[in-house]
Amino acid sequence: MSLRTTLLASAVALAAALPLSAAEPAKYRSAQEILDASPAGDWRTLDPANTLYMELESGRVIIELAPAFAPEHVGNIRTLAHEGFWNGLNIYRSQDNWVVQFGDPTEEEARRKSIGTAKAKLPAEFERKAEGLRFDRLPDADGWAPQVGFVDGFQAGRDPATGQAWMAHCYGTLGAGRDTAPDSSNATELYVVIGQSPRQLDRNITVVGRVVKGMELLSVIKRGPDPMGMYDKPADYTPIKAIRLASDVPEAERTPLQLLRTDSKTFADATEARRNRRDAWYVRPAGHIDLCNVPLPVRLPKG
Amino acid sequence: MSLRTTLLASAVALAAALPLSAAEPAKYRSAQEILDASPAGDWRTLDPANTLYMELESGRVIIELAPAFAPEHVGNIRTLAHEGFWNGLNIYRSQDNWVVQFGDPTEEEARRKSIGTAKAKLPAEFERKAEGLRFDRLPDADGWAPQVGFVDGFQAGRDPATGQAWMAHCYGTLGAGRDTAPDSSNATELYVVIGQSPRQLDRNITVVGRVVKGMELLSVIKRGPDPMGMYDKPADYTPIKAIRLASDVPEAERTPLQLLRTDSKTFADATEARRNRRDAWYVRPAGHIDLCNVPLPVRLPKG
Repeated sequence: MSLRTTLLASAVALAAALPLSAAEPAKYRSAQEILDASPAGDWRTLDPANTLYMELESGRVIIELAPAFAPEHVGNIRTLAHEGFWNGLNIYRSQDNWVVQFGDPTEEEARRKSIGTAKAKLPAEFERKAEGLRFDRLPDADGWAPQVGFVDGFQAGRDPATGQAWMAHCYGTLGAGRDTAPDSSNATELYVVIGQSPRQLDRNITVVGRVVKGMELLSVIKRGPDPMGMYDKPADYTPIKAIRLASDVPEAERTPLQLLRTDSKTFADATEARRNRRDAWYVRPAGHIDLCNVPLPVRLPKG
Repeated sequence: MSLRTTLLASAVALAAALPLSAAEPAKYRSAQEILDASPAGDWRTLDPANTLYMELESGRVIIELAPAFAPEHVGNIRTLAHEGFWNGLNIYRSQDNWVVQFGDPTEEEARRKSIGTAKAKLPAEFERKAEGLRFDRLPDADGWAPQVGFVDGFQAGRDPATGQAWMAHCYGTLGAGRDTAPDSSNATELYVVIGQSPRQLDRNITVVGRVVKGMELLSVIKRGPDPMGMYDKPADYTPIKAIRLASDVPEAERTPLQLLRTDSKTFADATEARRNRRDAWYVRPAGHIDLCNVPLPVRLPKG
């Protein structure tokens, strides 16, 4: 009894054997079938200078940074990673249906790990001018933003009235924790969304990137007992062996991940196939998809 | 550096000391402040005959069943729990940002655990008449349903054009897995949503209830390696010590959980406070909330 089944192979074979007249609608292809038939050019690789590898005991988490949205934060993160700031620190917070968070939780500032040559002060980078960004818009209405879509692989919102764009909080979004002052982040304390998309945070905090592979290593981290998911004893922390820029990692040790381009026809077609599921299992296609329900496919080259 | 901070105590004290004129807007109260001031009558207890206790090594998961939406499925679940069907079985599937699933995954039907006196065949219970249900509607638009809101503690959709209502898939929703045929569930294979709300499943599968406490025990279960989250070896399963109806559990061993009534003023006020966050941390209130972002508070009596 599976929650989802795929099209029966016999039904696919039968449909393929029948000629389609011009009046007949094109045969429905599932998102997976569309992906399987995608041209190589619809996939991209990550820029190593904008890619973080977070190495945990359980494996590697891969993060794509978003300098187009948060240039100052990403600049600091690059410096911090290059200088090994997070190496030996921990994931010290895991709040169910909310976030995991890592960095240095030491209350007393003087006792915190040195940030090296990184900047102590950064501006709030909650939104930016939409001008100059390719925005692949979703057709559906969204309650949190006038328009939503994708900017080079990132979920984003846009407001034509203000001409502004911003990154949206979805499962896997990486943001920079802050105190009450909007510009109180120095990009050392980072969080990853592990639950229902907390879109109310959009434009209230600086989003710096997105986990593109390895979410299943972060999402299973035991929740902390306090209401904010903090642990009461450091023994419960999840150690971070290292967070490195991929460009600082020998090429042989890099992960040759490929990401589906969100400006590709394959992506648009796969998203449409998900908006209106017509495979045998679904009795009622939704005719809609929310921004954070759209999968952003990745793959590893075969062999 | 916390993702969220609370109102500074001094600011609260100051506001409380200032008299409000009739022309001044009422002081903003956070959802937590509203909950803290709630009258006892805004809370309810669970009906033991509609409550499941799932006992794992890590603790107790508490589920409220929804006989108003899925009477036949809930009837079978009551029988299965009463006769100990799930005791000694396992959580055999954990797919990231999707579901955990439990029951008996044995492929060969003849070798599956007996369902005892439960019914082998159930109807699809995807929706029902809205008539007769109190529906506490959310003010915001939803992309998946003409109307959304709450029915006695459950997230639900409603369509005035058809007069139908149904339960929505949110974080913590419990559903009954099925094969391709809509009526192919017998309520033995159940799933719990552990990620972004998969609302595309609404009205495509029978929802039977909701986890009201203990999600943090299910959401951290190690993901299975296969694309659907199935494990390749039974050693990776999470054993279920027992799933029992609370009414079959001695009263002294029951959990005296209280749930905020979704038809209460406290719930409406707390939801409104979340739609428009005006505490010091937020610079931009969303003016919106999605159905699956509304928390459904529970508490244990003090002492």
